[in-house]
Amino acid sequence: MGQNVDVYAAAESAPWDEVVADAFTRVTRQIADVRSRSPFYADLFDAAGIGPEYQIRDWDDLTRIPTTDKREIRASLAAAPPLGRHLGVDRARLVQIQATSGTTGSPSYLGVTEADIATWNELGARAFYAAGFRKGDVVLHAWSLSKGFTGGVPVVRMLAHLGATVIPVGAEAGLHKILTVAKEQEAVAMCTAPNFALYLADKCMETIGVSANDLAIAKLVVGGEPGGGLPAIRARIQDGWGATCCEVLGNSDIATIVWAECPERDGMHFIGQGLVLPEIVDPVTGRHVEPVAGATGELLYTALQREASALIRFRSGDMVQIIDTDCACGRTSYKLRCEGRTDDMLLVRGINVWPTAVQGVVADFAPRTTGAMRIVLDFAGHVTNENLMLKVEHAPDTPADAHDELARDISSAIRSRLSFRADVRIVPAGELEPPGAAKVRLVERSI
Amino acid sequence: MGQNVDVYAAAESAPWDEVVADAFTRVTRQIADVRSRSPFYADLFDAAGIGPEYQIRDWDDLTRIPTTDKREIRASLAAAPPLGRHLGVDRARLVQIQATSGTTGSPSYLGVTEADIATWNELGARAFYAAGFRKGDVVLHAWSLSKGFTGGVPVVRMLAHLGATVIPVGAEAGLHKILTVAKEQEAVAMCTAPNFALYLADKCMETIGVSANDLAIAKLVVGGEPGGGLPAIRARIQDGWGATCCEVLGNSDIATIVWAECPERDGMHFIGQGLVLPEIVDPVTGRHVEPVAGATGELLYTALQREASALIRFRSGDMVQIIDTDCACGRTSYKLRCEGRTDDMLLVRGINVWPTAVQGVVADFAPRTTGAMRIVLDFAGHVTNENLMLKVEHAPDTPADAHDELARDISSAIRSRLSFRADVRIVPAGELEPPGAAKVRLVERSI
Repeated sequence: MGQNVDVYAAAESAPWDEVVADAFTRVTRQIADVRSRSPFYADLFDAAGIGPEYQIRDWDDLTRIPTTDKREIRASLAAAPPLGRHLGVDRARLVQIQATSGTTGSPSYLGVTEADIATWNELGARAFYAAGFRKGDVVLHAWSLSKGFTGGVPVVRMLAHLGATVIPVGAEAGLHKILTVAKEQEAVAMCTAPNFALYLADKCMETIGVSANDLAIAKLVVGGEPGGGLPAIRARIQDGWGATCCEVLGNSDIATIVWAECPERDGMHFIGQGLVLPEIVDPVTGRHVEPVAGATGELLYTALQREASALIRFRSGDMVQIIDTDCACGRTSYKLRCEGRTDDMLLVRGINVWPTAVQGVVADFAPRTTGAMRIVLDFAGHVTNENLMLKVEHAPDTPADAHDELARDISSAIRSRLSFRADVRIVPAGELEPPGAAKVRLVERSI
Repeated sequence: MGQNVDVYAAAESAPWDEVVADAFTRVTRQIADVRSRSPFYADLFDAAGIGPEYQIRDWDDLTRIPTTDKREIRASLAAAPPLGRHLGVDRARLVQIQATSGTTGSPSYLGVTEADIATWNELGARAFYAAGFRKGDVVLHAWSLSKGFTGGVPVVRMLAHLGATVIPVGAEAGLHKILTVAKEQEAVAMCTAPNFALYLADKCMETIGVSANDLAIAKLVVGGEPGGGLPAIRARIQDGWGATCCEVLGNSDIATIVWAECPERDGMHFIGQGLVLPEIVDPVTGRHVEPVAGATGELLYTALQREASALIRFRSGDMVQIIDTDCACGRTSYKLRCEGRTDDMLLVRGINVWPTAVQGVVADFAPRTTGAMRIVLDFAGHVTNENLMLKVEHAPDTPADAHDELARDISSAIRSRLSFRADVRIVPAGELEPPGAAKVRLVERSI
């Protein structure tokens, strides 16, 4: 089974039920191990009556283990600085400390040992391999490299582990430097954020006098923010670069990348067999959700062999939809797409609204818009019974007398596709902050 | 010999004449090897009559080998993009490509193999060890991490090789993030640029409400720009941080760090025994300069086992002065300090002026100045017969009626210590661009 499948690790094409059964054995071991090393988990398990002998044989057994969320990790960090009650190893064994962003609240931190880095490297190599990156490829790194962001130095290590020739340029280097290096070093691949990939392509000709399409870059991996999976955005990225564009998804606290698209490019496969156990649950009831096509829920992760900063049933906050359970590429894991984050969800007259979904609708209006947009929150909290306010950038060559029609068309597409009403305000191209080293914000508060 | 000396590698305390004799054997081998792999060097050696059997037994033999400079490397890159006629290995063997700055002209590039990274790691581990960094130390990286700069990812690898726990924050992360992470992660050591180290200390209280002196950082390594060796600047850095401050020096094209201060902190030792051969020459005649106390000249480097982008007798452009040939620390290499760069030198009424030396005089006027200054070039080229124009920032609490006296005092100190006349203009604290991810410019052109 899977012998002729083009994967980085054989486990990626093993029968999915075997992968899950193996993960249950590993998570049983990890639970006993982590409780002996981490006071945070010892307390959590004791309170839930989960003893050191607790066995996981099925999803029900797993669901009895309490989940952990970002807030509890922050509390653990505050209770035992600098790395929390869940650290689990001597600090002297840590080889690196990373900061996790940033989507919500202040930075938090995690430590990694040599073995933890080896796990991340394996995950990254599988993911970039799935996206078509190969040994010897000259790969430009254009995610943020600073702030201890896990998309930075850890990804440089992953690409090196795959055998690629990495150019650690970073998003901070800016348009001109990134594009110049891409051209001068004849890079064939690049990893970056989806909105920044689009922006780089749009500005390439005016910045270095060559179209992004004429550069050697033929393979893109995008992630770090939503957008790369939206058909209209992906099409523009691929057209702009004359390249394939694969999306990846991970979680700073667990591992930078745990999901990656294969050449089919219709949803991200799980690539962490033996290293991570993913789960989908109903975010409200916490019940297990079977990963069948169309199912939605929140993603949880358990690290199966993490030494430092181990996490069991960690709530990612990512709301996902299962795309399929079968794939022509031969990978046996189900495929999904991220719809948004639990903490980003808006409730507009009782309708759930994900900012990413709104971005998807706006992106479909290219070339009349630049694709840049912001939802303006003119109310406290995340619930409103008014129309949602939306700013959309028109393209530089959209004539002024066509703006009203554009606003009406977007408004009507939102009403029919997302079932809520939006007041659309068309703003000049370039008015919204351009993408850079930080995640693009899709929402801004006016209150 | 050297058994009881606290060094990272035994070679650091071997008799210096043995180190040099060993280097001559290695450079003989490297010359034969590089000529067989690199058309650039084959042509260069052929033109100079240096055959594959050429033997180096002494400095005279070495001096017959032609030197290489930055301009020739750029020409080699342009003749055979993307990595030049001196690349010397299959591109598929490269694991990383770095961009070299930036002090002069456009970026150039170099490739490194696995073995080249191992050499850099060894050099870095020796240097950081000399400065007091140890296995298990939590070290904050605050040099620039982006643009492919060799002070970025390569230094993260060096620190990891030493066994430190690295936090890859980077200068791009900015004041607030760097200081917050330093505090929250209880970092005990940091590497950064000297002017930025000073700036971080000055702004620490107002940025995070704690004095830099009260943070856990006890060891600093500074480099990447001059200043860390100037007594007044070093004293302010050490006072500000309550930490030791050691300077390091290297060259992007050869290796990020090749010289490092020991606990004596009176000049940088060579730490590249067996890996690099340094030379000092008269920049005009090219004659060998014996490294005795007080001698000055330009630093040249030969990589003794470089696989990719190898360089033989590479002119660094760094003008150095030998401080001593003997040290209480037990390291046997001579010690030096960088006075400036050949391309930075100004000629003011026939007097050689290094911007760094001017900065040193200005720094002595703390706390009346912030230490920030710029030489304003109001003439074309590097030669003038007029007074040199100098902008100096006064400290925030220096009263306006004391500015004229400050200007006169600085002007007179420059006249007596550096033998030229300067017109000093006092400007408000904060007017000159603050230090950040880029090297601090000491010179600005108004013409």
